[in-house]
Amino acid sequence: MSDHAVGPEIERLIQLLARLPGLGPRSARRVALHLVKRKDQLMGPLAEALAVAHERVVECETCGNIDTMTPCAVCRDPRRDGSVLVVVEDVADLWALERAQAVKARYHVLGGVLSPLDGVGPEQLAIDTLVERARDPQVREVILAINATVEGQTTAYYITDQLEACDVSVTRLAHGVPVGGELDYLDEGTLAAAMRARTQLQAQD
Amino acid sequence: MSDHAVGPEIERLIQLLARLPGLGPRSARRVALHLVKRKDQLMGPLAEALAVAHERVVECETCGNIDTMTPCAVCRDPRRDGSVLVVVEDVADLWALERAQAVKARYHVLGGVLSPLDGVGPEQLAIDTLVERARDPQVREVILAINATVEGQTTAYYITDQLEACDVSVTRLAHGVPVGGELDYLDEGTLAAAMRARTQLQAQD
Repeated sequence: MSDHAVGPEIERLIQLLARLPGLGPRSARRVALHLVKRKDQLMGPLAEALAVAHERVVECETCGNIDTMTPCAVCRDPRRDGSVLVVVEDVADLWALERAQAVKARYHVLGGVLSPLDGVGPEQLAIDTLVERARDPQVREVILAINATVEGQTTAYYITDQLEACDVSVTRLAHGVPVGGELDYLDEGTLAAAMRARTQLQAQD
Repeated sequence: MSDHAVGPEIERLIQLLARLPGLGPRSARRVALHLVKRKDQLMGPLAEALAVAHERVVECETCGNIDTMTPCAVCRDPRRDGSVLVVVEDVADLWALERAQAVKARYHVLGGVLSPLDGVGPEQLAIDTLVERARDPQVREVILAINATVEGQTTAYYITDQLEACDVSVTRLAHGVPVGGELDYLDEGTLAAAMRARTQLQAQD
C-alpha cells in the first residue's frame, strides 16, 4: 500500500493483522477499517483483551492445554475421570472435544504428529511426558484422539508401542459415518470401516 | 463453547475476534490459538499496535479520511492538486484509489450512499460539507468515484444536483472492460457501456 493515505500506525496494524490465519492484505485492511470505525466498542476492548491474554496465558505444564495458570483448569478439575487420558494433536482438538462434551477426562496435547519430511520426530512431540503420565497407576486407559490422516495413524501406532510397558489399555476413536452425513458423499475407506464396525440394532421394548 | 477448557480471558478474546468481518466463531478460535502460540512475535505487538491506533487514530475533519492527525496527511500534502475533489463512499475506496495511484488530488469521504430502505438519507452523509468544499473557488472539478450500484448511481445524481450552484465540473469514473478482464465473463451492462465509450486507436508512428 502506498503510504500517502495511511499513517505508519495503521500501516503497522494492517501488517500484523495480515499475519493472522485466514486473513490476507485485503481482508486485513478491511478488518483495520472495521476496527477504526468501532474504536471504543471493539478496537479498545480487543487491544485490552490481547494485552491481558499476552500477559497471563500460559501452557499447562502437565497436559499442554492453554490457560491462565498451570496446571490448567482441566487438570485441576476434581470431577474429571483421572483414569482416562485423551491424547490430541493440538489444543484446538482439545477444545473441539470439550465443546462436544465427548468425555470428562484429562488430556495430553502432543503438539503435532510425526512427520519425518517436516523434521518432526518423537523428540519434537510430548510423547515422553505422555509415557510418564501413563505410568501413574491411576491411569487405566489412553484414548488416542488423533486425526485420521496417514501421519496421525503413524503417530498412533508409535505411541501404542511406547505405551506397551505401561499397564494401560490404548484405544482410538471409532471410524464411521458422521452423524447427519450422507453415504453418497463419503470416501470408500470410511464406508468400509463403518461396515466392518457395524453394530446390532435392538428392537424397542 | 463450554467454559471447561478455556479460561475467561481467552473466551473474551475469542468473542471479540468473532466480531471482526470475515471471522466466525470457528475461525476466531483458530486465530486466538495462533496468537497464543506466537505470544511474543505476534500477540504482544498486535495488542500494542491496536492500543496505539486506538489512542491516536482520528477522522480527518476536512475529508473524512483516517489518520493520526486532522487535517490528514492527504489534505496537508502540498503536492496534491487542490482543484480536484474525489468523492468516495468509504475510506476503503480512498485507500484503493491511492494504491492504484489513480489521481493525485484531495478526497471527500461520504460515509455511505443514499439508501432510503436502510434509513440513510442525505443528512446521514457528508454531502453538506462536500458542497461547502466545492464552493471554494480553487476547486474546479468534483470526480464522483462512487460504486456503480443502483444506490451509488442515485447518490451520484443527487450530488450532481446539489453541486449545480457551484462553479465546478462534475465527472464520474468511466465504465468499461476491466484491464485483464475477459469479455465472456462480463455482464451485458458493462459490455454495452464499454461499446458506447469505445475510443479511437492511433496507428503507431
